[in-house]
Amino acid sequence: MASHDNAKAVAESYVDVLIVGAGPAGVMCANALVHAGVTVRIVDKRLEGISAGQADGLQPRTLEILQSYGLADQLFNEGAHVHRVANYEPTPDGGLKRIRLSAASTAPNARWTFGVGMSQGRVEEIFLASMQKKGLAVERATVPTSLKMSGQADGLEDPGSYVNTVVLQKVGGHNATEVVHAKFVLGSDGAHSWVRKALGIGAEGTMTNSVWGVVDLLPDTDMPDIRNLTYVHSSEGTLFTIPRERDLVRLYVPQANDSEVIDPATGRADKNRSSAEKVLAQARKLIYPYRMEVKDNQIDWWTIYIVGQRVADRYSVHDRALIAGDACHTHSPKAGQGMNAALGDSHNLAWKLAYVLKGWAKMLLLRTYESERQKFARDLIEFDKQWSKLFMANSLSSEDRDDASKKLFIEMMNKFSGFTSGIGIRYSPSTIVNPQYQTSASNLIVGERMIPQMFICAADGRPVEIHDMLPADSRFKLLVFGGDIAVPGDLERLREATSATERPESFLSRYGRAGAVFDVLYFSSGKQANITYADFPQFYGTHWKKAFLDDVELSGRFGGGGYEKYGIDPHVGAMVIIRPDGYVGMVAPLSLHGVEDITTNFDGFLL
Amino acid sequence: MASHDNAKAVAESYVDVLIVGAGPAGVMCANALVHAGVTVRIVDKRLEGISAGQADGLQPRTLEILQSYGLADQLFNEGAHVHRVANYEPTPDGGLKRIRLSAASTAPNARWTFGVGMSQGRVEEIFLASMQKKGLAVERATVPTSLKMSGQADGLEDPGSYVNTVVLQKVGGHNATEVVHAKFVLGSDGAHSWVRKALGIGAEGTMTNSVWGVVDLLPDTDMPDIRNLTYVHSSEGTLFTIPRERDLVRLYVPQANDSEVIDPATGRADKNRSSAEKVLAQARKLIYPYRMEVKDNQIDWWTIYIVGQRVADRYSVHDRALIAGDACHTHSPKAGQGMNAALGDSHNLAWKLAYVLKGWAKMLLLRTYESERQKFARDLIEFDKQWSKLFMANSLSSEDRDDASKKLFIEMMNKFSGFTSGIGIRYSPSTIVNPQYQTSASNLIVGERMIPQMFICAADGRPVEIHDMLPADSRFKLLVFGGDIAVPGDLERLREATSATERPESFLSRYGRAGAVFDVLYFSSGKQANITYADFPQFYGTHWKKAFLDDVELSGRFGGGGYEKYGIDPHVGAMVIIRPDGYVGMVAPLSLHGVEDITTNFDGFLL
Repeated sequence: MASHDNAKAVAESYVDVLIVGAGPAGVMCANALVHAGVTVRIVDKRLEGISAGQADGLQPRTLEILQSYGLADQLFNEGAHVHRVANYEPTPDGGLKRIRLSAASTAPNARWTFGVGMSQGRVEEIFLASMQKKGLAVERATVPTSLKMSGQADGLEDPGSYVNTVVLQKVGGHNATEVVHAKFVLGSDGAHSWVRKALGIGAEGTMTNSVWGVVDLLPDTDMPDIRNLTYVHSSEGTLFTIPRERDLVRLYVPQANDSEVIDPATGRADKNRSSAEKVLAQARKLIYPYRMEVKDNQIDWWTIYIVGQRVADRYSVHDRALIAGDACHTHSPKAGQGMNAALGDSHNLAWKLAYVLKGWAKMLLLRTYESERQKFARDLIEFDKQWSKLFMANSLSSEDRDDASKKLFIEMMNKFSGFTSGIGIRYSPSTIVNPQYQTSASNLIVGERMIPQMFICAADGRPVEIHDMLPADSRFKLLVFGGDIAVPGDLERLREATSATERPESFLSRYGRAGAVFDVLYFSSGKQANITYADFPQFYGTHWKKAFLDDVELSGRFGGGGYEKYGIDPHVGAMVIIRPDGYVGMVAPLSLHGVEDITTNFDGFLL
Repeated sequence: MASHDNAKAVAESYVDVLIVGAGPAGVMCANALVHAGVTVRIVDKRLEGISAGQADGLQPRTLEILQSYGLADQLFNEGAHVHRVANYEPTPDGGLKRIRLSAASTAPNARWTFGVGMSQGRVEEIFLASMQKKGLAVERATVPTSLKMSGQADGLEDPGSYVNTVVLQKVGGHNATEVVHAKFVLGSDGAHSWVRKALGIGAEGTMTNSVWGVVDLLPDTDMPDIRNLTYVHSSEGTLFTIPRERDLVRLYVPQANDSEVIDPATGRADKNRSSAEKVLAQARKLIYPYRMEVKDNQIDWWTIYIVGQRVADRYSVHDRALIAGDACHTHSPKAGQGMNAALGDSHNLAWKLAYVLKGWAKMLLLRTYESERQKFARDLIEFDKQWSKLFMANSLSSEDRDDASKKLFIEMMNKFSGFTSGIGIRYSPSTIVNPQYQTSASNLIVGERMIPQMFICAADGRPVEIHDMLPADSRFKLLVFGGDIAVPGDLERLREATSATERPESFLSRYGRAGAVFDVLYFSSGKQANITYADFPQFYGTHWKKAFLDDVELSGRFGGGGYEKYGIDPHVGAMVIIRPDGYVGMVAPLSLHGVEDITTNFDGFLL
């Protein structure tokens, strides 16, 4: 890289992407980019990673996402599995009674029907270990002190130009600075994001009057549902509890609006005005007559805060300096979304950045980051408001509630579960979400994540979860549902569509880049008794592991019914495009026409 | 340790167990012992671990065993999963036709309904890595040159005495020797076991006239079932193929009895009289009209050998020097048992050695190693003989076979699958296999391995496979099936049995050693809607993860029907003793009487 004529020697460097902030959004993005072959640096103001507290829960969709990076095993092994929600209501004699036990996640097609309780610090460590394998580590005790975006309009349109100039400084006594020239900058530096402010991005919304105390502890309790998610409405108020790794539990204890914990001068919650013991004492009152003591004096963490419900006006400046995670949105803890929304942001952004940087996609691809994720954040906050209101105001069994209100609460509980599982997220139509042929696979909703299903590997009869064939490896997946290849008509249609993809003008030929951009998988509706792997047309010289049957495995335990589940007629077939992030980008008829329209769609954003 | 008056200074050392031979049986035993806290050394004559060839398949029960040591993940990730068996027969026009596709494992209650194809060397590496975590490595290029057992009868009865004196020597130029004094010696040094010979143990049986050529290769073939286990009866003869890791395939090609590969002088197979190319040429004839070429010139390994069907007369001398694996038994490859039987031997032996060495069990416990494993080996060879005869002589579709013979073949195929899955192994009644109350859990056959089943954790609603609660951690497991604790009568019976176990004279008090010998798990037949974790009697102050319900998980995907599957009447209940190796040792009524009889049983072999 060229050195510049500076009066003073200043360290100067160049990087594709500079990430500011090594929380969940930051390490998620850094890990995804470095594995996609992008040059990344990631800095964080803290001297060390956090060891306790902060965000604490991973929802079913987030588990699927982490699995797609090969990073879910440790979560499953170490985290608390949250399968159930228990609702408690007061009894006339001053006690508490469990009045409802229900599934924590009701999303019908989640691969995992539970959430995982695990502290943010441990989740970050999983990403750090994965980044480390590619030689990337967080540069700690490092903060940006200046961020400038140069370049004319055409420079901004060239992803290869270093339009961002960031000055980094070490925290502490030294005044050592470094000037980093970055093609892209990502601000994943939290609710009080320095990057967001430096970019002049505002955040819509307000601080609520919802004040919370939080304690992480090792409980000694006779509360029967302490290993479940609980909502306790007692006569003294409301609290909720979430199980965590290592037998820990987190207590969320609402504080009165006029609470003494608010500093009247600033209007902000002041930790000095409370203590773990005070929050715990409040919790004890709410959970009475159950005991809530601390085992082995183990209080891992505590805090107190006012919930802000805000969404950033924009998610980037010119798509060259972007923000993600809490820098974009904050909301109440009851939705259990903080870390999940942050990870979802970066998962959405990383492959787009990689495509643009590699010269595979047009800059306009990055526009979809904001359009997809900002809408989600707004929906989330709208939901959070409704839910918070109901949550605080109502009690399921209280005599003064009418039936309609009770019914609404239950409905909201279910909606809550579906919504916050992350499974139901649907991205709106855009250049990368094309629902024009939705009927070709009527249940694979374009814009939603792929529905999990077991298929049988045609070559060896092994049952394989389709999600495991859709890793976050930066590739689009073309799923060819060719019907029953033992049926002549079906095979003919498959041949037609396949030979169309082999033409030089097809998307596969034009944008495939020798397998770097597309992976192709076949799914026949035929049965293993009739079809062998050798019966599949070897059009692309594909590996034997990529041809599947929609059949039941010989033990009878797995598979079958995939075409029906997906709403694909086996005698018509379909082609399904899965985005690198696992979302359905397009479905199309299995025909020359379908291939042409898929090609037109990719023409819109690939190079 | 005392040093001896030697004329010459000779290195001298002491160890609890000296293992000779680092094949599957040796590393399995070494790993189990070192994790149980026993001092072990393991030596092997080879300079390096093997990298290719040798044994190649792990059966469903072996997968369960490896899982119980926490060592199965790598197998599942790397190995070929063998779900299916395909039978081919000749067609009148000189071709081949698949006439049957069936499940590779038909054991109805296997946790995994497939085998794993993976080379012996990779399997050994898994154990080596696990041993390494405890600081144990194989001492290579080291052989015993002398083995003497001293000690009077009473010395032999004292597991603490170093009755074995072994001289070890480094292979190669040096003449350095070491004298090792070992309490126990294990010879896991293969079919031509030096230890077996040094102990003067004979091997019953004979060499067969069954001669095999074997090639491991990366195939380039249009054989449709190459990723399945195949038995190909062609007009030219018979061969079978087994898929392996890394897309490899092994071909087993029988050689004519009067084959030129036999050295007439010795009567043994002579590798110099054949070659990989020769065996491959034979295979090509048998598999015609399918092609069988080698991709990338990748022939990993090949060999040629005569099958010996032999079982050692004894498995030990005075239970102080023992043998395991191929040193005890050899048989044909078709049963796919070599590595599995070897691993099974050591799995059976290791916990018994640990108990005796720790002073927890009487020496007579070790007697059951031979009685259990020798009988298994004899059954295996008897089966192998029958099967080999049928396999070589018969063809399913040939015109000259009568229906009875065809039916027998199919029956044998099924028996084969059930038998060689390892799931059906039943150890005979002994001091550690007590079927006196079999009716208390009529389907949990005493002497067989525990039947897998999902139960629901009472505290958090998580579905848990019972096998995962029965790790190979050297502990017996007491499973208390207490019926529905919401039903007063059931709860009373549970209380009675539980208070009986709390008496000082009970097995739990007498032999429990503060949790080192017994782990206790509760299984209620009640439903999660009615029962919370807090309803379980906290008799033993057990952890919340150890109380279960026989119920369906809230998503409806897992669990339920466990009592029925196990043949336990919920209104009667049962206590089940699982041995440290996962086999059912005893079932008993849930009563004072039951506890007394379990105690009597443990009196028989624990100290």
